Parts: sequence; C-alpha cells; structure tokens
Amino acid sequence: MTIEQLKQDVRNVPDFPKKGIQFKDITTIIDKPEDLRFMIDRLTEMYRDKGITKVVGIESRGFIMAPALAVNLGAGFVPIRKHGKLPYETIEVSYEKEYGLDTIQIHKDALSPDDIVLIHDDILATGGSMLAAVELVRKLGVKHIYVNCLIELIGLNGQQFLAKHGIETECLMGIEVDE
Amino acid sequence: MTIEQLKQDVRNVPDFPKKGIQFKDITTIIDKPEDLRFMIDRLTEMYRDKGITKVVGIESRGFIMAPALAVNLGAGFVPIRKHGKLPYETIEVSYEKEYGLDTIQIHKDALSPDDIVLIHDDILATGGSMLAAVELVRKLGVKHIYVNCLIELIGLNGQQFLAKHGIETECLMGIEVDE
Repeated sequence: MTIEQLKQDVRNVPDFPKKGIQFKDITTIIDKPEDLRFMIDRLTEMYRDKGITKVVGIESRGFIMAPALAVNLGAGFVPIRKHGKLPYETIEVSYEKEYGLDTIQIHKDALSPDDIVLIHDDILATGGSMLAAVELVRKLGVKHIYVNCLIELIGLNGQQFLAKHGIETECLMGIEVDE
Repeated sequence: MTIEQLKQDVRNVPDFPKKGIQFKDITTIIDKPEDLRFMIDRLTEMYRDKGITKVVGIESRGFIMAPALAVNLGAGFVPIRKHGKLPYETIEVSYEKEYGLDTIQIHKDALSPDDIVLIHDDILATGGSMLAAVELVRKLGVKHIYVNCLIELIGLNGQQFLAKHGIETECLMGIEVDE
C-alpha cells in the first residue's frame, strides 16, 4: 500500500454538494480495511514522538480517524461540535462560510494549558474551519498545537492561509481540487 | 479499570437538551486515555471471533468508536448519515422521533449481502434510530448483523423493543435513565 494507491481509492463525486464542485468522497477509503489500516498506521507514525495528550476531531468526518489515532498515541479524544450539540458548558468561535456564519464549540473543561494537542479533520479546503478550531483550542490556553488532515485540496491554498496565522499543517495526501 | 469505574466517569448533565432530561455525556470517558483504551479493548474482545467485515457507525457520536473498532477487527468502516450528507447514491429510511420524522441514509454500494456487519452507536435509548439503521443495512441485503452500543439507558426498554424486531443488542454498560 502506498499513498498513491490510497489516492486512487478516493471517489470523486461531481456536482456535490452543488454544481461545479468536485467532491472528494472519503467513504471509499475508510470502508476498505487495508486503506483504513494504512491511514491509521501512517498517522500514528507521524505523531508518535510528539507527546500528544489529546487528539481533537472536528464534527462529523473529523470524528472518524481522530479517536483511533488517540488510542494509538495513548491520548484522549476531544470533539469540536456545531453549535448546540455539546451538553456541558462550552466556549465558541464563529467564522465566515460561503453562506453566512458558522459557529463551533468545545467543552470549556476539555483541554488544559499543558496539553499537547493534535487537531484533525478529513479535508483541508480554504482553511477557514480549521483556523476556527485552532482558535477554540488556543482560547483554552493550549500552547502546543499540531494540525493534520487526511486530504489537502491543492489549489485552495489552505496550508498557506493557516501559515499566515502561525499554524503549520501536515496532510496525508494532496489532491488537485479539480482532479 | 472496570466497567463500574468507567460508568463513574460518564457525566450526567441535567436538563439537556431540554428540561427534565438527564443527559449521559460520553465526552468525559473518551477524553481519558485509559477509559478510551479500555472501551476499545472490551469492544474488540466482544466481536473478535464474529468474522465482522464492516463496522457501521451512526452519525455523529457513533463515528467515535466504530472506526477504531473496525481497525482492530480488520474490517472497514461505513457511515450512516443524516439526510443530504452522503455525496454518492444512497438509500434511506425515515423514522418517528419526538418531533416529526427523521431520515437517515447509507451509500447504496457501501455493503454487500455477504458482509457480516456490526452496527454501533453510543447510546441506546428507545431504539428507534437503531431500528432504522438495521433496516437500512437489511435493505442492502445483509443477513448477518450485530448491534452494539456503549450505554444502554435502562428503563427505556430499547433492547426489548429491538428484540421484537428480531435484533439482539449488546451494550458495554447500562445506566438508569434517571441516575
């Protein structure tokens, strides 16, 4: 198994969620045992020696790999969710999406300043939702933050956008946005 | 670590999502490395010898443990999602919720009749959404289905409800609904 083979298994769905978008469908890489195992092994290798104490996943597709990775790293898993979904006291960040504002939340007792945090999501597009997630984690006083995605959509410059905010991002693979 | 210790770590949040409900918050068991590891080890033991080929998780909290379990069982992971979230061709089932109908979907090519499927969700309440999930999986021709939840809310009779539809359910722990 190689990253190139894995990329071949990502399904392109034209015109989803709307006309003109080439949607990268990860369901065809998570449903294959060898792809799933390969991804989790690679992610574990990438972060094994970082001292990660919490892996944060962004709802919903970020929940798929983050807890398995947390188990492998001996860390805990913390969810970032859409507004109104977390039951306990939360803090929140709002950010601009294509159509209006979106708000994400984290439990206010979910992280402490001495945690070493890995934030994971499945796809990095323009980087707006990832920046909001980093801001949430920073609000809880965390100083050591790693950022990871399965797929970077090359051409949308998400990594460059995040770098401008002092965030270094590592993705497992890059796919051209129109590929 | 024991199931009793794990139960102690589940947070009760009164009046969420509305007055009178004692919400069982699993974020306080997934954020502790020893609890997370204990759950995934126990689930792996429970299903190791069943020949499971696909673990199906129900959006969103069902996504947390199901993929990690799939990795351990050498299986693939398949998501069941709310209406409109899956990009490719889907089949769907609607079911009665407290306020009107809810619809869940699965990709029509996600499972084949010879798959041995484990459906997982975090909490079993009355069993309505789990029954809908089983119906979705059955619609794809699957004959061998196991059903699992982390927490059964004792007093809501979800297991008995599912048993009437020929579905046997195993949960990691039971918590009284008013506990």
